[in-house]
Formats: sequence, C-alpha cells, structure tokens
Amino acid sequence: MKRHEIHVRLDDSIATTSPVSRSYKIHVGDEILQDIGALVQNDNVQRAVVVSDQSINESHGRTVTRSLEAVSITVDRLTIPPGETSKSLTEAERLWNEFARLEIDRKTAILAVGGGVVGDLTGFVAATFSRGLQVWQVPTTLVAQVDSAIGGKTGVNLPAGKNLVGAFWQPRGVVADINTLKSLPDREYVSGLAEVVKYGMILDADFFQWLENNAISIRGREKESLNHLVRRSAELKTFVVERDEREVTGLRACLNYGHTFAHAFETTAGYGTLLHGEAVSLGMMAAVRLAYSLDLLDQTVVERQQQLLETLGLPVGTPVLNDIATDDFLRIMARDKKTVGGNLRFVLPDKIGHVEIIDHIDHMLVTSAIKTICYAN
Amino acid sequence: MKRHEIHVRLDDSIATTSPVSRSYKIHVGDEILQDIGALVQNDNVQRAVVVSDQSINESHGRTVTRSLEAVSITVDRLTIPPGETSKSLTEAERLWNEFARLEIDRKTAILAVGGGVVGDLTGFVAATFSRGLQVWQVPTTLVAQVDSAIGGKTGVNLPAGKNLVGAFWQPRGVVADINTLKSLPDREYVSGLAEVVKYGMILDADFFQWLENNAISIRGREKESLNHLVRRSAELKTFVVERDEREVTGLRACLNYGHTFAHAFETTAGYGTLLHGEAVSLGMMAAVRLAYSLDLLDQTVVERQQQLLETLGLPVGTPVLNDIATDDFLRIMARDKKTVGGNLRFVLPDKIGHVEIIDHIDHMLVTSAIKTICYAN
Repeated sequence: MKRHEIHVRLDDSIATTSPVSRSYKIHVGDEILQDIGALVQNDNVQRAVVVSDQSINESHGRTVTRSLEAVSITVDRLTIPPGETSKSLTEAERLWNEFARLEIDRKTAILAVGGGVVGDLTGFVAATFSRGLQVWQVPTTLVAQVDSAIGGKTGVNLPAGKNLVGAFWQPRGVVADINTLKSLPDREYVSGLAEVVKYGMILDADFFQWLENNAISIRGREKESLNHLVRRSAELKTFVVERDEREVTGLRACLNYGHTFAHAFETTAGYGTLLHGEAVSLGMMAAVRLAYSLDLLDQTVVERQQQLLETLGLPVGTPVLNDIATDDFLRIMARDKKTVGGNLRFVLPDKIGHVEIIDHIDHMLVTSAIKTICYAN
Repeated sequence: MKRHEIHVRLDDSIATTSPVSRSYKIHVGDEILQDIGALVQNDNVQRAVVVSDQSINESHGRTVTRSLEAVSITVDRLTIPPGETSKSLTEAERLWNEFARLEIDRKTAILAVGGGVVGDLTGFVAATFSRGLQVWQVPTTLVAQVDSAIGGKTGVNLPAGKNLVGAFWQPRGVVADINTLKSLPDREYVSGLAEVVKYGMILDADFFQWLENNAISIRGREKESLNHLVRRSAELKTFVVERDEREVTGLRACLNYGHTFAHAFETTAGYGTLLHGEAVSLGMMAAVRLAYSLDLLDQTVVERQQQLLETLGLPVGTPVLNDIATDDFLRIMARDKKTVGGNLRFVLPDKIGHVEIIDHIDHMLVTSAIKTICYAN
C-alpha cells in the first residue's frame, strides 16, 4: 500500500505554550482509512468521537471506528443529516450539546469523516467546545481532500451568508483515502476538479500541464492519477497555508481565484442550483476573461483553461444566470467577507501558474466578464 | 489624569503571519473611558460596533461612543439583556445575525463595554464572526477589570455547564476605568475582591500583605487603593497569561485556585444563589483547609486568608450548601472541563504567594474540606 505524507509546518514557536506542536501531517493513499487507529494512537488518545453524515460516510465512519477500536480507543459515534443545510448553528448547537452529554474532555480526539459540510461543521464545533478539542479531518470527497480539509478554516452558514460564523482551527492530522472517491456521484467528483485546476492556474504551470496530459484518466478516476492529483493539490494548498495561515499577508488570497465570482453565482442562482465546483469553474472563466480584458494575459491562457475545464467535464458557460441583473452580482461581490472597505478586489492570473491581486477594477469590465459565461451550455 | 499601561506580550513570532502584533496593552486609570477614541484610532480603524448591556453600561457605552465619534470613527451600537442568561447561544446567534445585518468587515473594531457577561459573549461572537474580528475589552465591573477581560478566554454557557462553548481570543486592547467601579452595587463590588485575594495567595505575598494593610480603604473604594488593586491584579493575571496563553503548560491552572470548589458550589446551589466571587471565596476556604489537611501549610495561612476575606466582606462559610449530598459536589468536580481522564486535581497553596497542583487527592479529605464551609454564617 502506497501512502504519502505531507508535512504542514505551522508556526512552531507557539509550541512554547503547547505540549504538542501545531504542525501536522496529511496522509494521502489508497485504502488507508483502516490505518487511522495507529495514527491517532500515536497521540496517546484513549477516547474518540467519530462524526459523519447519514450517507456512504456512515460506512466510512464504521471503517474508521473499527480501526480506532482495534487499538483500544473508546469510540462514540455521532451523525448529522447530509447536505449543506447541516452547516448551520442549529446542527452546531446539537453537536455541542451531544459533546456535553458525552462528557468529552480535552484529551478526546474528534474525527470528522465526510465531505466539506462534515469537516467544516465538526471542525468549528471542536474548535469551540471547551475552547478547543483536537480534530482529525478524514475527507471522503474530492473537494474536501484537495481543499476544504486542509488549512484550518472551519465554520457554519448564517441566513445572511456562507461561512459567516467560524474559526481558524488546524487539525491534528488529515487522512485522505482516495479509495473513498470511487463511490462519489459523477457530478460531485467532477465538481471537485475545479479546485484542482485552480491550483495549476494560480501556482504551478507544470501541474497544469500534467492535468492537460492526463485529463482522460483523471476523468476516469484511475488510481495513479487520483493519487498524484490529491497529493499535489494538498501540497500546493499546504504551501499557501504555511505562509499565510490566517489570510492576512495576502498570499492566501490567491486561493480565491474564481471564488469572488463563484460566491456571487451560487448566491444569485440559489444554493444548490450550482455545485460549488461548478460555480468555481464558471468563476475562473469570468476571471480569466476579466484578466484578458485588462491585458494581463494573452488569449492562449483563456483557451487552455477553457479547454482543460471542458475536458474534465466542468461547465464554462451556463444558462442559469441569464435572468439575473448585473447589479445583483456586484452587490454580492461587494459584501464578500474578504472585501475591505467596499473595494472590489480580484485575484487574476497573468500567466498559467501565477496570479496577482488587482484592486479597484472598473465595474463595467466585471459585468462584461460575467456576461461571457451566461449562455446556453 | 493618571493612566498606567500594562504590556501583554504574546508569542510575537506569530506576527510573521499577521500585520498586527498579537501583543496589546491594558490601560488602567481614572476617567479614561473618554480617551478610548484616540487608542482605537491608532489602529487605523474607521468603523466600530459598541456592545453593552441594558444597565449602567448603556451610559458607559455612550461615553465610549462619543469618544470614538470624536475621532471620526463611525459607530453602531448593540445591546444585550443584563445578566448571566445572556451568555447563551441564543444571544450569540442574535449578535452574529446583527453583525451580518450591519455588513461588518474585518476592519471593523468591536468594543465590549460591561462586565464579564458582555465581555465573554462579545469576545466569542467577535472571535467567530468572519473567523475573527478585533475586539476591545472595556470592563466596567471589578471582576471583569481584574480577571475576565484579561487573558483571552471567551465563551457562552450550555444547559449542561458554564463556558462549554468558547474560544481563546486575545483582545486588541483592554481599557479599565476605575471610575466605573463607583456605581457598582456593594455585593457585586465585594464579590470581585475574591479574585484579587486569589492573586495574592497564588502569586504575590507582598500584594497579599498590601491587601491586609489596606483592607478598609479597599472596602471603601478609595481611588488610590482601587488604582493599585486593579493595576497589580491585571499585572499578575498578565504574568500568567503570557506564560501559558492556552492553559496547557499547567501554569495557567494556578488561576483555578478555589475555582474547582467554586464551580461545584455555584452549580449545586443553583446559579445566582451565590455570586461567582462569593463562591470563589468559599472555594478558597475549602481549598486552604484541604491544603492544611494534607500538611502543605500551617494554620497561620488558613487564618490570614480567612481574616482578609472576612474584612473585605466576603463569605467564609454558608448555610446554602447544607442540604447538598457530598457525592453531588464530587460528581460535578469530576466533570470540570479542566479535568483530564476523571482524576480530581486541585490547585493548593503551600504558603502565601505560592501554589502547587496536586493530583489524586483522597475524596474523603475533599468532602471534609467542603464541610468546613457549610455552616450558618
């Protein structure tokens, strides 16, 4: 069994006030859920709570539970309803009360087994119960393995917007088993590829080219491709998080490529109409065209990105935004929580593998870029 | 006007990922609320939200608001109902939604003007909105000025227990105006003195002696005494927090002197029967007698602590716990969130100005110590 470890090195000086280093490892491999007990046991853990949703993850949760019990860790299991609606204060409150009922103490390890919703919700509840419990992220979807489970962002949604309540809370470890990707519905798997293309566009031209060369086998979920894809994506996300853990130097902002548009698309279309990755794919197309209209890059970049997204099965245009007033997009983008003082700020590529942050962009150019993706696909 | 600044130095290496240092200052003085605008302005803040409760703090909130507006900071004001019941997820949710409605961004400064409830609730909401806003603590009660506003602990209560949901979140600054102490009800003021006595007992024999020598003028809220009292207490709390910000090396645990007992007393008596400081006073008496029964110290220490608490008007015995089964106390203490693995752990003095952490204490000795404070006062 092949297993790759990625070290996430975080501000180890804070270890002067902590018995455990905040640094941790991301484990990527095939059929490695069954080895999780040994990893958690290394931490001298005697008790654990496994949180998953009521889906295929119940089965993954059982695998994880058996692995923990095999090394004599006592396990309680909690489940949440599947879907984005569980990323709510209501579910958080239920979990907090369950943790209290179970009389969990700070030595208890929490394991979040599932996609982004399970990871974000469980991470937030763990971050805030008794002012902080150790959490292991066990992502079982592509988007969670390459993105949401790495980097310590946790949170829930408010009626007014996504992720408005949350915390930066680094996991104790991440275990990404590519075997869990086999059972994903096709639309969900493909959606996760949008973040992968993003890493190529913002940070790594070689990886972008590898994606172009292997698009068919990626689309077919071949194991060798999945392994490299998840591993390299996790490395690239780690590279950014290590250098800007709390999104303040500006570096982490590069991860928002396509996302300012995507959030506006998701909100206006109504949550659930577009999957997040689909919105990101559309957002990257709007962003690359905006960059082109600002003369930041040449037409080849636009074409290569579009070609790769299409080959992977991602949307590059959509009819669902046709009836939405352009002012609605602008209003939502101005309210984005990374916005500072109302200024519209975009992360835009100037070539494949490199982005810049551009401020004070003409609203007309932004709406023109949006219009290029509004068509019958 | 006399103003004293205490520097809180926190892990400045993390400044590599932050444009502002996490270190901050505690300002202690008389009539300094009106200067807060200048302090906040130094941070290049253009917008602020002032949170207070519906009490005398509305008036203090107005003073703070005027001071901010005088330096051209735009201010929104929010209020919460007075009392411990506001330290709830319900109030937190209301504030999160209000923050969303006001479209607050990460450049907005939050100011918590009030006692421990306002500070803990507002601090937690600020810590978790948009994954973290800057918060200024403006404590207006004695217990908040000497204890709860310093050190970054924030949180709300669950039905199952106090402070079960929360975060470590350091303020951007603390402004403690001793002038606000004049209007406190006597019982509340006296209650705050319990934490002050605690600092003397755990860390500073000279300060303990100063308290003995000045007990009458402290009881009379004379300004010179208040100034020294708040300042020295804040310094001592800062000393501990700087060395163990997240309660992991064991040092910060010294602040729990009397508190393991106190939490059990508050819970069994029913919240509100005893003020927190009253419970701490009783808890310190149980703890010092437990230490005596373990031969950690001589009778003089017990007597000096009891004498000082009594002179300051604090209870050293109570009839309200008479009817409670000793098992109830033990059960609650075993559930304390600082408990690790069910072991009963106490912070006990071995002389005035110094404490040790003692594990695995005989339950019989613990219940005997509790019985010594259960009598008609």
